[in-house]
Amino acid sequence: MAEQTYDVIVIGAGPTGENVADRAIKGGLTAVIVESELVGGECSYWACMPSKALLRPADVVAEAAAVRGVTGARLNPAEVLARRDDFAHGWKDDAQVGWLDSAKIDLVRGHGRIAGERRVQVGDLTLHARQAVVIATGTRAVVPDSLSPVNPWTSREATSAHAVPGRLVIVGGGVVGCEMAAAWSALCAEVTLICRGRLLDRLPEFAGEIVAAGLKDAGVDVRVGVDVTRATRDGDHGAVTVELTDGTKVEGDEVLSAVGRSPHTADIGLETVGLAPASWLDVDDTMRVAGVDGGWLYAAGDVNHLALLTHMGKYQARVCGDAIAARARGQEPAVRDRSSKTNVPQVVFTIPEVAAVGLTAAQAEAAGRRVRTVEYELGHVAGAKLFADDYRGHAQLVVDEDRRTVVGMTLAGHGVGEIIHSATIAIAGEVTLDQLWHAVPSYPTISEIWLRLLETYGL
Amino acid sequence: MAEQTYDVIVIGAGPTGENVADRAIKGGLTAVIVESELVGGECSYWACMPSKALLRPADVVAEAAAVRGVTGARLNPAEVLARRDDFAHGWKDDAQVGWLDSAKIDLVRGHGRIAGERRVQVGDLTLHARQAVVIATGTRAVVPDSLSPVNPWTSREATSAHAVPGRLVIVGGGVVGCEMAAAWSALCAEVTLICRGRLLDRLPEFAGEIVAAGLKDAGVDVRVGVDVTRATRDGDHGAVTVELTDGTKVEGDEVLSAVGRSPHTADIGLETVGLAPASWLDVDDTMRVAGVDGGWLYAAGDVNHLALLTHMGKYQARVCGDAIAARARGQEPAVRDRSSKTNVPQVVFTIPEVAAVGLTAAQAEAAGRRVRTVEYELGHVAGAKLFADDYRGHAQLVVDEDRRTVVGMTLAGHGVGEIIHSATIAIAGEVTLDQLWHAVPSYPTISEIWLRLLETYGL
Repeated sequence: MAEQTYDVIVIGAGPTGENVADRAIKGGLTAVIVESELVGGECSYWACMPSKALLRPADVVAEAAAVRGVTGARLNPAEVLARRDDFAHGWKDDAQVGWLDSAKIDLVRGHGRIAGERRVQVGDLTLHARQAVVIATGTRAVVPDSLSPVNPWTSREATSAHAVPGRLVIVGGGVVGCEMAAAWSALCAEVTLICRGRLLDRLPEFAGEIVAAGLKDAGVDVRVGVDVTRATRDGDHGAVTVELTDGTKVEGDEVLSAVGRSPHTADIGLETVGLAPASWLDVDDTMRVAGVDGGWLYAAGDVNHLALLTHMGKYQARVCGDAIAARARGQEPAVRDRSSKTNVPQVVFTIPEVAAVGLTAAQAEAAGRRVRTVEYELGHVAGAKLFADDYRGHAQLVVDEDRRTVVGMTLAGHGVGEIIHSATIAIAGEVTLDQLWHAVPSYPTISEIWLRLLETYGL
Repeated sequence: MAEQTYDVIVIGAGPTGENVADRAIKGGLTAVIVESELVGGECSYWACMPSKALLRPADVVAEAAAVRGVTGARLNPAEVLARRDDFAHGWKDDAQVGWLDSAKIDLVRGHGRIAGERRVQVGDLTLHARQAVVIATGTRAVVPDSLSPVNPWTSREATSAHAVPGRLVIVGGGVVGCEMAAAWSALCAEVTLICRGRLLDRLPEFAGEIVAAGLKDAGVDVRVGVDVTRATRDGDHGAVTVELTDGTKVEGDEVLSAVGRSPHTADIGLETVGLAPASWLDVDDTMRVAGVDGGWLYAAGDVNHLALLTHMGKYQARVCGDAIAARARGQEPAVRDRSSKTNVPQVVFTIPEVAAVGLTAAQAEAAGRRVRTVEYELGHVAGAKLFADDYRGHAQLVVDEDRRTVVGMTLAGHGVGEIIHSATIAIAGEVTLDQLWHAVPSYPTISEIWLRLLETYGL
């Protein structure tokens, strides 16, 4: 039984785990990462990178089709898949391992399980942590009982498949469902999207409506307000028949289950430290797990359920790694998480895109804030008209009426993905509307939506 | 001799003049605009709108060519010109006149000249202003002596030409020169760009270098460090030969003079109120012209030389119209210009784009601020790699070291035009780096450059 001791042990080598270890080492500590799959995690191989590598070509083609004077743009599906393969590094993690080396982070391959206080077991190897153990194991796709008999695709297969299915049935109208519907329909799959409620139901209604319209334009059969009752497959690899609550049936060559995520915590030894296996992990604003004596256990990224997004995981990782390093020096952490609950940006890379940050009006009111919502048609902004003919889009700003600050913003339309960071900064800086009045957007950009929203507010 | 009296007389119906009148009317005053050409001004017919209508199709085609998996995108020049015609409303101002009507702004067509205090003469009509006269006449293109014998294109012809010249020689490497080189080369003109110094010389050097590389990729013959000594034309409409300071000659079917702007103030009666004709007009932070007794004369937009950009003219117009309305009520203006000198954003719609705001390090140091410059390769950001293969770009952040705030930012690369507003807001809100650390950019967007710059700074 080999034993090794580090200041920090991180379980999970996704972007979150990598960043925790990196910040800890930059803070003067030693760190090891334990990983049972590929270094780089879900984001690099089965989520952000491959999905955006698939979607960007489709997005360009859609934009080209929306600009008079441009002709002939089309996708070459094999080349799009090859581009995706490149961005996923052929599902090999050599480059990421090289980065770990350069960052002086040790790597142990294998399944890490907590084995009591400050101890992690990886096969025969026992790792001891002087300072902290950090859980950064992320999540896995939930497959509902109705779909499990047909062995459906999850986000993993949907982002890594090497052939375009003739007919793809997607169950779930959240981000994964909508993005994959956009990607595979662009690659000429016949896509049916099934959604229990409305599309993108955590965002203001117009966002899902604009995405639905875009998907329909792309030929997707969007069915909202229905759920799956049963699914059957013809043999092991044959067609799938999906039966719906409205009594109809949909047939597909593949079916994608995109109904949600569960934490990767079932088999990581949580029970050895008094925590419930398979649970999401509650953390404080330094990512320290609640209810563990000695305060040595941390959880960053999706596994703490605060904000299931790569960039928020990386943000929490910076907070977490810095906090561990500060505490190792006997100091209180100088920087604590203040964004994971109130200033979470998200871009949905559908065609067109949706970008949102902060709280919706309902969330802000639930938090006791007196808010006002301001709306404006994005297509009335000169920069949007120039960007795409017959531009269809919408913008919503939520304002805290007492502080005169921005609480949230949602944008839907072509090319909005890079605009949302302006709102994220406005929220983080508690910039007032009166200050924003002096932040002049360039003409003619889509960002001029800021001026229109402020004018509509009454400035 | 007819006479009419208004609270406010605006000379010039470009976006600036329109917005001054609109704000004055919203403040309870009456207003008239005097315009000798088209309502809507340079921006609508011979600048922003037609130039961006020409450039956007070229931009999409360039982006498509930079994304593996997309094939076949190309321009149809006749359709691009038709798109441009639509955006310029066929050089008819009916739509803008309709907007004036809806905003209750009166219009007098003709050449307006100031005729002493609070008086403007338009042909036989004498207009009297109870509160203010506002000069919003903008600028015209400068044609250097070396080019005037050949009757060159200016920005007007370059944005409104109805046929693609076979060979186009562009003199001037500023925004107009670079944008028009990008536009016309994409439309298959053989373009030579002649620049006395370096391209985009008011911006950090890398911006011009990246634009030059883009132009060269597009087939433009970029010649920097040379000037025109003489130009001759073969007959009235024949080829132009341009002789350069390095002894070489360039031949073109057309030549565009893009060497600068002069104020449209030569013949507007400035001498009747003690001001020098043909001069730029000095204004205070409410756009009131210095040195005019009674404080009734204002100048907003390009004509005051603060920031020759449509969006800054509109901003000044809001400040100006509101100030006039406030003073009419006997109040001090609540909102004064605080952006025209230190927080001016600009997007150069070349291929790739450049976007900049605020001060360069040299400008900030000249203003007595202790600054630090942070640099990062945009192409190393995941969002940029996904946006365009082999992404070439660069970012620079200028930080005030005493206040720990952003002073300026410059970005060059595909798709950066919508990112710059985030920096404009950071400057306007005096958001500190420590607050910016909590403004998390979405992954994988190009906006993640913010994280990389802050990390590089040392956060």
